[in-house]
Amino acid sequence: MARLFTFPLLALWTCLSMSTALTPDQIANGNRNMTVGYILYPGFTILDVFGPLQFLNDLSYTFPITLSLIATSLSPVTSRPPNHHLPDGSTMDMSHAFDLHLLPTHTFTTAPPLDILIVPGGAGDLSLIEHADRSIESFIASRFNSTSYILSVCSGAGFLARAGVLDGRRATATKSVWAGIVKYGPKTEWVASARWVRDGDGKVWTSSGVTAGMDMMVAFLREVYGEEKVNGVVNGAEYVPHTDSRWDPFSVLFKVPGADMNMSLTETVGPLPSFPEE
Amino acid sequence: MARLFTFPLLALWTCLSMSTALTPDQIANGNRNMTVGYILYPGFTILDVFGPLQFLNDLSYTFPITLSLIATSLSPVTSRPPNHHLPDGSTMDMSHAFDLHLLPTHTFTTAPPLDILIVPGGAGDLSLIEHADRSIESFIASRFNSTSYILSVCSGAGFLARAGVLDGRRATATKSVWAGIVKYGPKTEWVASARWVRDGDGKVWTSSGVTAGMDMMVAFLREVYGEEKVNGVVNGAEYVPHTDSRWDPFSVLFKVPGADMNMSLTETVGPLPSFPEE
Repeated sequence: MARLFTFPLLALWTCLSMSTALTPDQIANGNRNMTVGYILYPGFTILDVFGPLQFLNDLSYTFPITLSLIATSLSPVTSRPPNHHLPDGSTMDMSHAFDLHLLPTHTFTTAPPLDILIVPGGAGDLSLIEHADRSIESFIASRFNSTSYILSVCSGAGFLARAGVLDGRRATATKSVWAGIVKYGPKTEWVASARWVRDGDGKVWTSSGVTAGMDMMVAFLREVYGEEKVNGVVNGAEYVPHTDSRWDPFSVLFKVPGADMNMSLTETVGPLPSFPEE
Repeated sequence: MARLFTFPLLALWTCLSMSTALTPDQIANGNRNMTVGYILYPGFTILDVFGPLQFLNDLSYTFPITLSLIATSLSPVTSRPPNHHLPDGSTMDMSHAFDLHLLPTHTFTTAPPLDILIVPGGAGDLSLIEHADRSIESFIASRFNSTSYILSVCSGAGFLARAGVLDGRRATATKSVWAGIVKYGPKTEWVASARWVRDGDGKVWTSSGVTAGMDMMVAFLREVYGEEKVNGVVNGAEYVPHTDSRWDPFSVLFKVPGADMNMSLTETVGPLPSFPEE
């Protein structure tokens, strides 16, 4: 659906577009069948999954990308979090939340080899923790060495931390429940002000809350596949991404300890540069 | 999950927040059980559905909102568009697109009364048109008078136009396939440059492509429920919305006839103003 046009209006963007020759790695990635796995669990956050997935889906029209939705069983997975207990012993009643059902394609035991593993956040994590269910953390740990990339959105970073794969790495997480996530990564260098963090070798990407995952995915895909096709997909979705990973007004809004309180809370954004069709 | 904080840093936002006393209509809406129906069909665009739905879902923690996902049957609905024929007679092969399955809750015959009806876009519309399947248009026409609000995202405006409910109204649609949509509404005043359009009486809202639906939903919810709770939900999702409905750089990028070619393609955005918790 995405159409690509030249964009004559801003010289700035013309300059930007001069740096887009594909690297050998990007050319190789474009030719490779990339297997993507999303972990699902009851109470996943809807947009943590489907925001980044939109761009992957649209890229799958151009590049060979296959998707697995992975859960404990093949039963439909609901977006409604299970009720769980609060620290004071009372029950957090989630029965009024939407009850949206998605069909997994694989279980933790049948999932294929994965190039890209994505872990969404969601209030359902609280119930898993309460019941000492570590199946997601076990899966992450077992697949970490064999994946090329692992990404988390929002509170999904908590699963990565509990799996131990953030030890000694830089990461971020949702700013709305910051303290509730970073406690799981005592050996992690948590970045308080970051829309997303790409850890040193580019294997581990973690984003701030919910829609920050879309911006992380745009940056990730531009690094993996190059700008030309990715920008076309982003423009086709009429999405204006935040491209500065350090811009994070929500770290200020939610008063995260160590946040850069002097940063500008506003940002000037516009569509990504487009490229002529080949 | 959304927490609300006062926001001392920008006097501008303090000014903005002074205009947020709830109207009698907004107070009434907050107390009303609002029934929301989303239409699904094979080849719906993922983010047309789940982007706006995220904010509705989060608001359902505060306000009584129930969700129906409505399709021709209760079988899972795939996001993969069926193959369809192009004008030159060739087949558009969609078999490589992701095959994501969502479970409907109702059919067109069992759907409950709806206060809000939402129609997503998607490449699946081309197959429905090819097979002269007008079930969605019939449903829209049959429910139009009894709904309080009807919203479309992206090419979803085509369903509204074919159902006749855009006759004599102002509307917009995705800029990436503009000509392919507006032809269905010869009696519609199509707005070439608009992130979204709120038609005169506020009953009909139509957005531009994909992620424009998220911005439309934020504006719609702020009008229906007031800013206080809605802004908290949007900030909780760490989303920075576009709040000027007339800002539409994609109408320029996609060279839509009649687009305002002099508009600024960039925009300065920031988080919505927050309010102290009650």
